[in-house]
Amino acid sequence: MKRLVLFGAGELARLAYLAFADDERWDVVACTVSAPFVREAALFDLPVVLWEELESTHPAAEHALFVAVGYRGVNRHRRELCERARGRGYELASFASPHALLASDVEVRENTFVFGGAVIEPFVQLGRNVIVWSGALVAHDSRIGDNCFLAPRAAIAGNVTLGENCFVGINATVRDGVTVGANCVIGAGAVVKHDTPPGAVYSAQATPLSARDSSGLDTL
Amino acid sequence: MKRLVLFGAGELARLAYLAFADDERWDVVACTVSAPFVREAALFDLPVVLWEELESTHPAAEHALFVAVGYRGVNRHRRELCERARGRGYELASFASPHALLASDVEVRENTFVFGGAVIEPFVQLGRNVIVWSGALVAHDSRIGDNCFLAPRAAIAGNVTLGENCFVGINATVRDGVTVGANCVIGAGAVVKHDTPPGAVYSAQATPLSARDSSGLDTL
Amino acid sequence: MKRLVLFGAGELARLAYLAFADDERWDVVACTVSAPFVREAALFDLPVVLWEELESTHPAAEHALFVAVGYRGVNRHRRELCERARGRGYELASFASPHALLASDVEVRENTFVFGGAVIEPFVQLGRNVIVWSGALVAHDSRIGDNCFLAPRAAIAGNVTLGENCFVGINATVRDGVTVGANCVIGAGAVVKHDTPPGAVYSAQATPLSARDSSGLDTL
Repeated sequence: MKRLVLFGAGELARLAYLAFADDERWDVVACTVSAPFVREAALFDLPVVLWEELESTHPAAEHALFVAVGYRGVNRHRRELCERARGRGYELASFASPHALLASDVEVRENTFVFGGAVIEPFVQLGRNVIVWSGALVAHDSRIGDNCFLAPRAAIAGNVTLGENCFVGINATVRDGVTVGANCVIGAGAVVKHDTPPGAVYSAQATPLSARDSSGLDTL
Repeated sequence: MKRLVLFGAGELARLAYLAFADDERWDVVACTVSAPFVREAALFDLPVVLWEELESTHPAAEHALFVAVGYRGVNRHRRELCERARGRGYELASFASPHALLASDVEVRENTFVFGGAVIEPFVQLGRNVIVWSGALVAHDSRIGDNCFLAPRAAIAGNVTLGENCFVGINATVRDGVTVGANCVIGAGAVVKHDTPPGAVYSAQATPLSARDSSGLDTL
Repeated sequence: MKRLVLFGAGELARLAYLAFADDERWDVVACTVSAPFVREAALFDLPVVLWEELESTHPAAEHALFVAVGYRGVNRHRRELCERARGRGYELASFASPHALLASDVEVRENTFVFGGAVIEPFVQLGRNVIVWSGALVAHDSRIGDNCFLAPRAAIAGNVTLGENCFVGINATVRDGVTVGANCVIGAGAVVKHDTPPGAVYSAQATPLSARDSSGLDTL
């Protein structure tokens, strides 16, 4: 059993805590956050330690780290923290839920987290520091760049290339064979069918409100 | 093994029958329907008994009930039946498929049915009398009001609040953080990205028919 | 253990190989392709044999066949190959992943392949030569015609009829009760809510590129 420190105390950190705490390979021993947050941060009953001084209590020789930070700054925040952690000598942990359907040839690399209900087909390459949320799907032969974030039920078809740092929202779709540039944001429910430039943003139009309210529906 | 009576003889009743009959905790002993339907109703080989007189043959002391009725009247019909059943002293059963991915902290309350392939993340609150169909997903920290109906593959992001009695259609999407008012209807494939008033209806535009038929497609 | 020959050496053939090779009922012994492709075809370490002369090395009496060909020609190519294989006396194999959620009453017929993560509810009729890709869903009481192809996460609601040879793309939606004519193509992310003529094509509009690039997003 290896000692693990979680960076962060937000949503992903809470979910990552549950997952790692339930995994007999890991002993989650602390939560670490940056100085401005150290007073207010709380993650279950873990001690909260200062990121800037982590080595003093939780040295890299004896602790791995998981950066449990979301997609803020188009995943830049999480990426930079991973880089700093590596620079300070910390091994970065990863987690793949036993309830995910992960092809046996797919490598889960550092600081990657695959939630239950995700599907990753054979011949897929996942970069480092990739978050694959519940029910997201990556079909065969696709390549997901470093630091990407796939929200719940994101659907990535076969032979897709996602550049680094991309965000794909809930129930968004990327058609087969498409190459998505780095730093793209594909919002909830968006449908991407053609190659995209880097930094592109796709925001699906929300379904408009109907004139009639639900009390007048005959068909329901 | 507890005796169970199913209210209804329609689609949900047939599926509920299969599920409860396969669950060793339950012994499904009868189907009950209201007087106008009692002659034509049939549910596998169960005896069909009159709802208005259920106590005479299947008293509440010895039988639980599951109201296996769909979303008619924006779930009002199912809700009212649950209320009447409670008023008559019947315990309301619930079912969560062993093939659903249900976080261990999520409570499944009375007359709730979670189909196989559904995903419910941690920190979710499900109300009473909620139907979560196959492949529907409710992400972390969301609250699903009483009497809601999530159709197959409905996608509810994190931190969503669904008011009471809502219907969310097949492959519809509700973005993270959105509050949906009571009695809303979010149709098949609709995308809701902002808070909604109560009783709102969202009907996705159907994809238009292409001018060219499939025999002329080069790309397929 | 029965001997199996795979027709094809493309994407589906590679995935089918992994599946059948992992299934103790089958011994995958060869890959077969038509004359124009026999020189360049390769499928793992299988011998590649000429389709036109398959009987000479792999007779029908001792070998089953799986036609691992995609949706080209609106599934016509795969259909015609199945017909020829039958005419030459070959039994056509099928596969349903143990990681699919397949109702126990659903019959998986010849040359049908159900990937992991697919959900097929009770009372569904699947035709012959149907491909149900990862995460695709077919709800209760629907009928899927011969030779249909459901891409990853295709969502078919209840009481739908899909005519023969249809293609349903990734994350496309067919609403409950709809009848889809034969030879239809429902593209990635499309939403079909009404009955369709045969040969109809539905192509969802791609989400337009936003004016602002991702570096200017406040909300991410």
